[in-house]
Amino acid sequence: MEREKPSLAKLFSPRGVAIVGASPSGRVSFATMVVLSLKEAGFPAIYPVNPKYTEVLGLPCYPSLQAIPGVVDHVVVSIPAESALGLLDDCAAKGVKSVHFFTAGFSESGYTERAELERAMMSKARAGGFRIIGPNCVGLFVPKSRLVNAFGIPLEPGPISFISQSGGHAQNLPFYSGPRGLRFSKVVSYGNALDVDESELLDYFSQDTETDIIAAYIEGVKDGRRFLRALGEAAARKPVVIYKGGTTEAGKRAAHGHTASLTSSVAVFDALCKQVRTIQVDDMEELIDVLVALRFARPLPRDTGVAIVGAGGGPSVLASDEMEKAELHLPYLSPEVQADLRQFLPLAGSIFSNPVDAPNLASPEAISATMRVLGKVPDIHMLVYHLGFHPISRWGGGRFSAAAFLRPVIDALIEAQQAIGKPVLLALRPAPDLPGMKDFLTAQEAFVEAGFPVFHSLRQVAKAMARVVAWNQA
Amino acid sequence: MEREKPSLAKLFSPRGVAIVGASPSGRVSFATMVVLSLKEAGFPAIYPVNPKYTEVLGLPCYPSLQAIPGVVDHVVVSIPAESALGLLDDCAAKGVKSVHFFTAGFSESGYTERAELERAMMSKARAGGFRIIGPNCVGLFVPKSRLVNAFGIPLEPGPISFISQSGGHAQNLPFYSGPRGLRFSKVVSYGNALDVDESELLDYFSQDTETDIIAAYIEGVKDGRRFLRALGEAAARKPVVIYKGGTTEAGKRAAHGHTASLTSSVAVFDALCKQVRTIQVDDMEELIDVLVALRFARPLPRDTGVAIVGAGGGPSVLASDEMEKAELHLPYLSPEVQADLRQFLPLAGSIFSNPVDAPNLASPEAISATMRVLGKVPDIHMLVYHLGFHPISRWGGGRFSAAAFLRPVIDALIEAQQAIGKPVLLALRPAPDLPGMKDFLTAQEAFVEAGFPVFHSLRQVAKAMARVVAWNQA
Repeated sequence: MEREKPSLAKLFSPRGVAIVGASPSGRVSFATMVVLSLKEAGFPAIYPVNPKYTEVLGLPCYPSLQAIPGVVDHVVVSIPAESALGLLDDCAAKGVKSVHFFTAGFSESGYTERAELERAMMSKARAGGFRIIGPNCVGLFVPKSRLVNAFGIPLEPGPISFISQSGGHAQNLPFYSGPRGLRFSKVVSYGNALDVDESELLDYFSQDTETDIIAAYIEGVKDGRRFLRALGEAAARKPVVIYKGGTTEAGKRAAHGHTASLTSSVAVFDALCKQVRTIQVDDMEELIDVLVALRFARPLPRDTGVAIVGAGGGPSVLASDEMEKAELHLPYLSPEVQADLRQFLPLAGSIFSNPVDAPNLASPEAISATMRVLGKVPDIHMLVYHLGFHPISRWGGGRFSAAAFLRPVIDALIEAQQAIGKPVLLALRPAPDLPGMKDFLTAQEAFVEAGFPVFHSLRQVAKAMARVVAWNQA
Repeated sequence: MEREKPSLAKLFSPRGVAIVGASPSGRVSFATMVVLSLKEAGFPAIYPVNPKYTEVLGLPCYPSLQAIPGVVDHVVVSIPAESALGLLDDCAAKGVKSVHFFTAGFSESGYTERAELERAMMSKARAGGFRIIGPNCVGLFVPKSRLVNAFGIPLEPGPISFISQSGGHAQNLPFYSGPRGLRFSKVVSYGNALDVDESELLDYFSQDTETDIIAAYIEGVKDGRRFLRALGEAAARKPVVIYKGGTTEAGKRAAHGHTASLTSSVAVFDALCKQVRTIQVDDMEELIDVLVALRFARPLPRDTGVAIVGAGGGPSVLASDEMEKAELHLPYLSPEVQADLRQFLPLAGSIFSNPVDAPNLASPEAISATMRVLGKVPDIHMLVYHLGFHPISRWGGGRFSAAAFLRPVIDALIEAQQAIGKPVLLALRPAPDLPGMKDFLTAQEAFVEAGFPVFHSLRQVAKAMARVVAWNQA
């Protein structure tokens, strides 16, 4: 007999979490890491479960779910697949709402009996009135509920939700994008999608008032028609950015071994995404870039004209090539505009034709004046300022990291952006050494705090903005 | 009357260097930076020249070239273009062999009189019996002679020479590639190419016994026929890697403003490069990647079969897609090979079909055994091991940075590479935060020291190796 299945909303704010398979060992194990992460995040009711121990990381450890005195809404499972069915009986008895299986080795292993095991688990979930997340995934990250599955990532909630068929990507996105200012409402790693799947998640986030932007990593969809409907409804309400893994023969093979996904034809998937006005990206780096653009570029440009500003002839040539290859457009500056620029940029070592390159383009006055002149050009719709972190810049006493340098530049860019009403984008190049990375991270933090979209290369600016403009024009 | 012009060999080991325009100020100025760099590199005879000062950075400062007591072979010039001709008279009187103009604002400024000034400078050089490097460039970096033009870069000599029409790229290449193990014989930034140009430099490095690999950043060539001959001769002797800047309309415009280059048609340039078996790349990052592959992949693969090894399903799917997009090939593993792998890789959480992904692929034993099994597969010609630096890895006490973790893994990879006779390539992903970057840089240093080619993403491995294989097959 089937009981009513809990809605996803119930999953995102559990009152108590049990972690089955946690151990006190210092070894890197997922279950123990979750206990530590929940503890550090201040989650109020954490229950490690393992008959072998009485304590895990200072918390009482219980021999079974039944032995836990408090309410348990969510169960994190990291025990061998062979023990899954017995555990699900315990979950039903305890009245939980959701069970997340980190455990892998199910249908994706290719063994028939493991696929059958999944079907038996599904029956137990429906009979027990709870949901299954995964198996073969890292589950839920909901900062607002302090429900976390990793540490070292920002815990402030934000407006982005991410659904990911890969656990690695689910943990990497908040980690890698954190320093660039991205914050998340909910991240759901759903692995083999036995129960909770991409379409249900899209439906949920489409309606979720705490989600303004939806990101997705998808290897394969279970039901193309249902997915298209869910995607269409979500994309009509919010920007949806999709990274499809498994777009080549080898990639499909890996996706099948990874999450048992039978990835659909790339052409079909691409066509679906285009029909419903989503933004498709090619990898995780591009996913972050597009999210940064959507989140922080104000206003979002509707056209492809871009101006490039910064010191360095080589980077300026590269910038031009990258922008045009990405099908952005660098409008040529009229003699009048060039004459305006020559009033405060020196003849020697400068390029005035867009890109604008001048040796004094690290001074706030020159940056501000240049931005204001370029911002008035009608067919320029966004402005890029680029900056490197060569040891030369450290020579003057770390001028690129010093508040004395950064603050005036940032203030100049804020004022210029307000005055011209067009977005200013930053291209900060990470350094290859530790002193350079310190400068780079300090600068990035300051620009991000001031609300600017920060990218790590001119190519990344070009590719992300080209995608965002195309989406915004559609 | 023309005097014999010195050969380039004379330029690379000057006995004394004068820096015209140096000042004692702490401001970032090129001339003063060169004085400091030469001093730190231990160059024996450094002569700052500036009539306004008597001392620069603890060295006696001279009012003119003539006032210098010692021999001066090379002059670095950073004074306004207007004073160039008078200075060249002084250079002739002093009997110097080469004059490098950092000074910009010549033909690239677009003013007719500045182009005429360049021609007058050229006449003075021929009459005075010295060579001009630039103008509008950063000049010479020759570690063996301690002739340096920047600091914070490795000073050990190495087998790569780089000719660069961009000063920024000339300084960036040794800086950004240093931590990946690249070392240089000579780096020449030649800017507007008034006298010393790309073809003469190619001829020189083609014959230079201290140069095994030639890298070039070129915006435009002065004489296509001469360049093709020089390129052909160089490419017949050594690998030549070319990054052509200004491949789009906007890029050409920027290149013209940058170094007065009239960049040729991209199609023509591409055809030239293909005729003579060079490796073309699209940006500086790719230039570094290809140089790393040429320098450290042993043996250089002649075919496209690649095996991917490492933990993480998402990265494995990405790896597959990137490799195939770059037209590398991931051979499917036969049931026999998969059975071999299953002997030491767990069922749960693993992919056995190439990519090989298993949760224990951070253990030296599992890595070594996997590499040996894959290395025997005939259509696998290179093996990639990938590793990220997520905070999770720091939890176990910084296991990825600790010698206790790294040393056994590196030893296992060295032994496996020797046993299988195929190159092992590393894809180490830089971290977004400082603790992660510390781990990353420590690991990178250890792998580089052990002689491995290290790349920073799977995409970079794919693109670089595809180019190297194509070149090696040609």
